[in-house]
Amino acid sequence: MPMYTAPIKDIQYVLHDVLEISKKEIVGYDELDRDTTGAIFEEAGKLAEQVLAPLNQIGDTQGCTFENGIITTPDGFKEAFDTVKQGGWSGLDCDPEYGGQGMPYLVGSVVNELFSSSNMAFAMYSGLTHGAYSAIHAHGTDAQKQTYLPKMVSCDWTGTMNLTEPHCGTDLGLLRTKAEPQDDGSYKISGQKIFISAGDHDLSENVIHLVLARIPGGPEGVKGISLFIVPKFEVHEDGTCGARNGVSVGKIEEKMGIHGNATCVMNFDEASGVLLGEEHKGMRAMFTMMNEARNGVAVQGLSQAVPAYQEALQYAKDRLQGRDVTGIKNPDGPADPLIVHPDIRRILMDQKSFIEGARATVCWAATLIDQARREDDDDAEALVSLLTPVLKGFLTEQGFQMTVQAQQVFGGHGYIEESGVSQFVRDARITMIYEGTNGVQALDLVGRKLGLNGGKTVMGLFDTVKTFIKENENDEALKSDFLDPLKSASKDLQAAAMYFMQNGMKNPNNALSGATDFMMLFGHVTLGFMWAKMAKISSDALTSGTSDAAFHQTKVATGRYYMARQLPATCMHLTRIQTGADTLMDLSEGQF
Amino acid sequence: MPMYTAPIKDIQYVLHDVLEISKKEIVGYDELDRDTTGAIFEEAGKLAEQVLAPLNQIGDTQGCTFENGIITTPDGFKEAFDTVKQGGWSGLDCDPEYGGQGMPYLVGSVVNELFSSSNMAFAMYSGLTHGAYSAIHAHGTDAQKQTYLPKMVSCDWTGTMNLTEPHCGTDLGLLRTKAEPQDDGSYKISGQKIFISAGDHDLSENVIHLVLARIPGGPEGVKGISLFIVPKFEVHEDGTCGARNGVSVGKIEEKMGIHGNATCVMNFDEASGVLLGEEHKGMRAMFTMMNEARNGVAVQGLSQAVPAYQEALQYAKDRLQGRDVTGIKNPDGPADPLIVHPDIRRILMDQKSFIEGARATVCWAATLIDQARREDDDDAEALVSLLTPVLKGFLTEQGFQMTVQAQQVFGGHGYIEESGVSQFVRDARITMIYEGTNGVQALDLVGRKLGLNGGKTVMGLFDTVKTFIKENENDEALKSDFLDPLKSASKDLQAAAMYFMQNGMKNPNNALSGATDFMMLFGHVTLGFMWAKMAKISSDALTSGTSDAAFHQTKVATGRYYMARQLPATCMHLTRIQTGADTLMDLSEGQF
Repeated sequence: MPMYTAPIKDIQYVLHDVLEISKKEIVGYDELDRDTTGAIFEEAGKLAEQVLAPLNQIGDTQGCTFENGIITTPDGFKEAFDTVKQGGWSGLDCDPEYGGQGMPYLVGSVVNELFSSSNMAFAMYSGLTHGAYSAIHAHGTDAQKQTYLPKMVSCDWTGTMNLTEPHCGTDLGLLRTKAEPQDDGSYKISGQKIFISAGDHDLSENVIHLVLARIPGGPEGVKGISLFIVPKFEVHEDGTCGARNGVSVGKIEEKMGIHGNATCVMNFDEASGVLLGEEHKGMRAMFTMMNEARNGVAVQGLSQAVPAYQEALQYAKDRLQGRDVTGIKNPDGPADPLIVHPDIRRILMDQKSFIEGARATVCWAATLIDQARREDDDDAEALVSLLTPVLKGFLTEQGFQMTVQAQQVFGGHGYIEESGVSQFVRDARITMIYEGTNGVQALDLVGRKLGLNGGKTVMGLFDTVKTFIKENENDEALKSDFLDPLKSASKDLQAAAMYFMQNGMKNPNNALSGATDFMMLFGHVTLGFMWAKMAKISSDALTSGTSDAAFHQTKVATGRYYMARQLPATCMHLTRIQTGADTLMDLSEGQF
Repeated sequence: MPMYTAPIKDIQYVLHDVLEISKKEIVGYDELDRDTTGAIFEEAGKLAEQVLAPLNQIGDTQGCTFENGIITTPDGFKEAFDTVKQGGWSGLDCDPEYGGQGMPYLVGSVVNELFSSSNMAFAMYSGLTHGAYSAIHAHGTDAQKQTYLPKMVSCDWTGTMNLTEPHCGTDLGLLRTKAEPQDDGSYKISGQKIFISAGDHDLSENVIHLVLARIPGGPEGVKGISLFIVPKFEVHEDGTCGARNGVSVGKIEEKMGIHGNATCVMNFDEASGVLLGEEHKGMRAMFTMMNEARNGVAVQGLSQAVPAYQEALQYAKDRLQGRDVTGIKNPDGPADPLIVHPDIRRILMDQKSFIEGARATVCWAATLIDQARREDDDDAEALVSLLTPVLKGFLTEQGFQMTVQAQQVFGGHGYIEESGVSQFVRDARITMIYEGTNGVQALDLVGRKLGLNGGKTVMGLFDTVKTFIKENENDEALKSDFLDPLKSASKDLQAAAMYFMQNGMKNPNNALSGATDFMMLFGHVTLGFMWAKMAKISSDALTSGTSDAAFHQTKVATGRYYMARQLPATCMHLTRIQTGADTLMDLSEGQF
């Protein structure tokens, strides 16, 4: 069974050495000194290592069961969920007015990594609740907030997002679920929703469904969609639960992975619900949840790479196979450990350099979210809007590939479920699909986010990178290994954006055809930028005689690998982008 | 449930238009006219579509069961296996002296694609038998051949390869299974083997295990390994089966995929066996099976991409979601089909261009195998030796990625097992691992195959590509879209080989660190070369007024996509290779 070790030291490095969070002028950040975050993450890490990780494979093997209308989660999930609740983890970054601890989003995001790494299917139950909490918090009436939020902050009630219907997922304009207005101001919701993660289960007293539906007579398409709060059990004004509402589980899906999470077909049969936010403006309210969810999924992408890497590394150290061609390393053993072989190291370094670069990126994005929310900073809001599709798309794509690579280190043993590595691959696979497939992220990036504020947001980011390079160009330790590759990759990114500007006008397909490549290119540049920053910080620490030289040397060496071995992908993506739409659109449908 | 359509027309195009097989001076090829191969593949295709494909998902869901020492294959497997036997498919390219039909390897390889595409787990039962047949055919005594081969050709008896032990897979020098010589010239085999595909089952009367073991007193390492024939039931001299031999199944493994194939732990407890080939030269004999098996696995890599693509294509045509940004295509429907969207087309074109390029490559390699075997052509033998690791590594890596991409077209529906696409991903995953992980293929390529005949083999291939480009440089239809990209990619490949020559001597890790990138680079150039050839043939056909213009236009357009969108990867691989070993080898084991 895989063992998970929470990477506290690496996290602390990102937060305090790289991002210097306690120096940031963001409400609440002044309290985030090294000791405080250390204490929080140590506790969360212990829970992840000792309670959640041991249930991960059990969750995969047993899955959820659905009998007589009741869904049962795998053995141990209920007790673990209670432990998480008792620790106050579900309300860590929630509003104190409703029982939350009021910590910054950043802290919640780090804990999300720890919990997801140890048991993603489990972490989704509270994760989705958090998304629903955020939507009600942002768009609910005071009464709604008073009724629902305290119970959701504590996870006594969990939440869901009900978007997808059998005939539509991405194109929500097609959705058919109806909401008939009632005399008392409530609505009767009828329709079928599918792929509802954590749709029902035995972990909480109530499940609060946020449901997209149409009020008859409203506009067609996405402009006629409203968002409703539809609880599993009706909720009285005093906050107690009443009769069963007209919402039921049709079935639970057999999936490739995340077996420990109940993915439900939900049937709404004149279920009683209340409007959340304004009529016909449900998509806007839903996007509050979705943007948060997309950042959360980016973290999930990273999160599965972490234990997969830890397992692969341990195996590479333990498994004796073949000899180092440059000279025997383990003369007393029958063979050398796998880790002596360059091709195994390539895989491990790919994983390590991705994980650490990705973590710096999601933490940076989390500080931007805090800056936007806590300081009403529109520039930060715009920048994180730009980065969200990049993070969701790039980190889940690469995170998945890293789990596949971890499996490769194990050889045949990785294909056997017993080793647990296959589960990381199967669980990670969903992150490329849900909360908008990565193709949809790429379209969001190219179609909407690039043009944000007339292109000023993306230009601002380019400038930030350029300024960093300029400020450090005399640093010989950084120049050839970090700044030059970053400059080159950044130029590729700008050339790609320029290509879209020049060719997307006359034919939008010229931009859309390169969307996924652009997202990947953007992701590489972002991680490259983070690595250059980390290299600067660690190389400065080494120059000034840090007491932890091995740690900082490792950082610099890992970053050097990323720049040398991963960043060259930008050139490939640019070349592809610049071929435009012709070769994609040439064939008629019948010619496929 | 996925439906499979055998791609007969595309196969015939490769064999007759591209490779012009009936013009080749290879024994038996003169009989392979278009009508003959068409008739064979139509029949095989019918079997694949109507008998094997409908059992694929059943095989995945039910898996094999192991109770009271008996393994039961999924419902319908036994009947389907009998149908395959009765059709003589198992002996298609086997020696007529033992009941085979004596067809070229090429024909068998194409049928392998069809059977594997429709049901890979099923096709492995006869596929492994064929490998064992080949080893006995090449290394057995006349008596052994008379005893075993007729029953194996007919698949009344099936075969296995017993290499891996719990502590060793790649490094077979470590293996411990013992073979004690007996007075009658036989051996008693004792030890444990793991990951034995088709290790035991209910499809055949007997299972003939080929087992690597050590004769006590022999040299250490791989030089002391011999190969033995160890039947499940002892075989009398008259060919009838006798008592149960000392070989039993310890358990069957729970795997990520290929559930329909029984992957066994095999326990040998003084099992009676006979030596195959010479004492201590078992590795050589085993390589006969392994080279064949590696080419077969390359075909499997391709094979899973095919039905995954067919499913994704159908879904992309049927599923209505969103509108074409350049203008509505399906005004009478609520939305346009997915296939109008450039990013979906990118995925479909990636798959289509990979599949058709890969098929041309494996068929070309199969003709080389026939030329080597049937014409004793050492150059052909060397060339296919060079290509084998490229095909195994590149086609399984890309084939797997294509199944992942097919899943992406389905969105959430692709993650649900019901759609059947997840199975293609899970089944394809093993092809990157077994018969030597892809990392091992890369080492074989760089460490052994590049230097074959003092480098003459690889230089010969470079010359072939160069000559093709030169011969066609005045062809305007080919120049910019095909010849220029091929020339550039080919230069990248040569530059990489040159880098290894110049830097691998002083430090072999400089070559080994780039091995996987080199394998991928080599694969792209090979497929690019095949596409350039196909483009020439199809563009000539168009010029000369073919009656099937749409077909040939599609080929040219698909090839153009590959050259524009896939071939640029060569530049990335070259850049990575040229960074050498430093960034990989920098960290000490403890720094990971």
